[in-house]
Amino acid sequence: MPTISQRGIAMPPSPIRKLVPFAEGATARGVKIYHLNIGQPDIDTAPGFIEAIQQFDGKVLEYSHSAGLESYRRKYAQRFQERNIGVDHNDIIITTGGSEAIIFGMMSCLNPGDEVIIPEPFYANYNGFAQMAGVKVVPITTHIENGFALPSVKEFEKLINERTKAIVICNPNNPTGTLYTDDELMQLRDLVLAHDLYLFADEVYRMFSYSDQPHRSILSLPGMEQHAIVVESVSKIYSACGARIGALVTENKEVIAAAMKFAQARLSPPTLEQVGAMAALDAPQSYFDDVRSEYISRRDLVVAALQQMPGVTCPNPGGAFYCVVQLPIDDSDHFCQWMLESFSYEQQTVMMAPATGFYASAGLGKNQVRIAYVLNKHDLSKAMECLAIALQQYPGRTHS
Amino acid sequence: MPTISQRGIAMPPSPIRKLVPFAEGATARGVKIYHLNIGQPDIDTAPGFIEAIQQFDGKVLEYSHSAGLESYRRKYAQRFQERNIGVDHNDIIITTGGSEAIIFGMMSCLNPGDEVIIPEPFYANYNGFAQMAGVKVVPITTHIENGFALPSVKEFEKLINERTKAIVICNPNNPTGTLYTDDELMQLRDLVLAHDLYLFADEVYRMFSYSDQPHRSILSLPGMEQHAIVVESVSKIYSACGARIGALVTENKEVIAAAMKFAQARLSPPTLEQVGAMAALDAPQSYFDDVRSEYISRRDLVVAALQQMPGVTCPNPGGAFYCVVQLPIDDSDHFCQWMLESFSYEQQTVMMAPATGFYASAGLGKNQVRIAYVLNKHDLSKAMECLAIALQQYPGRTHS
Repeated sequence: MPTISQRGIAMPPSPIRKLVPFAEGATARGVKIYHLNIGQPDIDTAPGFIEAIQQFDGKVLEYSHSAGLESYRRKYAQRFQERNIGVDHNDIIITTGGSEAIIFGMMSCLNPGDEVIIPEPFYANYNGFAQMAGVKVVPITTHIENGFALPSVKEFEKLINERTKAIVICNPNNPTGTLYTDDELMQLRDLVLAHDLYLFADEVYRMFSYSDQPHRSILSLPGMEQHAIVVESVSKIYSACGARIGALVTENKEVIAAAMKFAQARLSPPTLEQVGAMAALDAPQSYFDDVRSEYISRRDLVVAALQQMPGVTCPNPGGAFYCVVQLPIDDSDHFCQWMLESFSYEQQTVMMAPATGFYASAGLGKNQVRIAYVLNKHDLSKAMECLAIALQQYPGRTHS
Repeated sequence: MPTISQRGIAMPPSPIRKLVPFAEGATARGVKIYHLNIGQPDIDTAPGFIEAIQQFDGKVLEYSHSAGLESYRRKYAQRFQERNIGVDHNDIIITTGGSEAIIFGMMSCLNPGDEVIIPEPFYANYNGFAQMAGVKVVPITTHIENGFALPSVKEFEKLINERTKAIVICNPNNPTGTLYTDDELMQLRDLVLAHDLYLFADEVYRMFSYSDQPHRSILSLPGMEQHAIVVESVSKIYSACGARIGALVTENKEVIAAAMKFAQARLSPPTLEQVGAMAALDAPQSYFDDVRSEYISRRDLVVAALQQMPGVTCPNPGGAFYCVVQLPIDDSDHFCQWMLESFSYEQQTVMMAPATGFYASAGLGKNQVRIAYVLNKHDLSKAMECLAIALQQYPGRTHS
């Protein structure tokens, strides 16, 4: 029997999927689960998106251009220009989700054995994409005490060596919800230019910025034309996760040329969803305003509830729809499993993601969980009630 | 300025895209182009496919399961069982096109530096997928003289060494149209079992078999449970290229487990198109019969026309909708470019794919082109008329 590959063995399983059998067990026991474990929002898909697909009147569902429909890219570029970002349609490759944009970016910019520095905790699937590209992830730890702020230049420089080729950030951040300040971004810019690195920014949550200062794309940082590689997606901003439409955006023509060869090999991204996404570019501002204020009130509810629980530390996240929370517990994997397997309050429980899966450094995140506030406020307050009681009853509770 | 990756440089460009600027030039000159260069059929998408998508009545376009909708996989597995292939829904991972199935298969089964043997000429994008996986493609040449039949076991064994991990076939074949016989498949089976290799079969054209003997999947070969990795796609069988729905199918549980980790990293294949593809599983047999007889008559038209042209060699392909044809010309890249740049007959010309891009061995295919018979018979006969006259006028014509 032939053996599977080393990367197939080394590929880490999803940190959330591990809990699925226990969730199935809870459902079998008749316990209702509040799913705060995944970033699947309950928000309606942006107006126009599904309608445009339903109105498709072709007889043949054909390939699109490998870089995506030109009409879509042109309109998309226009939206960038309206944000004072000077990209044109040739600087955009439409990808199958943000995931494919990261894979194409890594495949195009990095050689096997190269290193990328990523502030941890980070989106766990970066590990998988790095595994596919043969790239080594070097974590730089951020800390809950200062709201998971970006580490100093000095800390980054300790990790930079001749194999370092890129820094990867996610802004606003999944899993922490941290929104980087302009100062932090300019500091990263200086670092990247000084060491001739690429800066990848996963900006798929850019519409979810809750501070007075709007989200700033790294594409708008001066002098970064050859260095900035941006990942976008319609999954969260239009609540269209199942569409699998993302984009790789860069003014670096060599990177675009290399990424285009990978894009051509896989022929095209899905055609109909590009039609939907193009329509959603015309969604009214009121849709985004409503979504934003809904998330702000959800965040406020969750953060207030968490901060009232004894022994719990929760920074006030400035963006996205996640927070990483420190709990008075011995082991987050065990706690999340226990919540599904052994706990219920009024026949209800909460599913969360243990934070261990978001750290590359062994042993970190053991008393932290990621909470995604993607449910309505009624459900969120029920979920917080459950969590508060669970923390009182959990046998592995620590004193704090 | 940071440099791009070696694989980005080494990644071959698409053999067809090179001609795009010349095609644009022909259009600018007012010359109509018959596109026999790509596998985008003009056939209507299978009944039910687009309709099911149009009837989607959800408010939120959500992720599907990373392996694809369970309902779709269960019904899909049933169709396999009806063909006497004993796979169940856990042996199927729905992918984003057949392309992603090949990438997941290579990533899961092969280590960087491993070798795969592929009969050439072969689908050019296998080069790209191998490049992404860091795998070395070792070509084994097939010949137009015997209809691109599979080479003998002895020829394969000359190429097998300790780095060889898999053989990749495409059946029916793109680009040659060759349909492998049962004997050829059993011979491959014996070889694969003897050397403990994986056998990848790209069976995306399986519905396009024009011989009396139906297409045989490698999943039905005895004793191959741990070795057979099959790639499927809805692109051709339902004429839904833009849907980007494919599948990796194998009874090897370790491969499925590894591939699932890659599948989870990219979250899910497109949701709506799975709904369409599931509906198309109920398309009436008459749709497939009509499509098959349409392609048989197209093939007959094209092959008859080609065989009448002096100096042209064209085998009678048993499947798919391609043929590789030998022409009395000096250089197929130059000829195909000349057809677009300098030739027209009644303001018409033909775009074909130079066969050089389908060979990994340098220098092969220089007097061959791939023709895709994906247009209606009227257009195909006009295109053949053009080609016959072009061959008379082409300055690089060789005596034959």
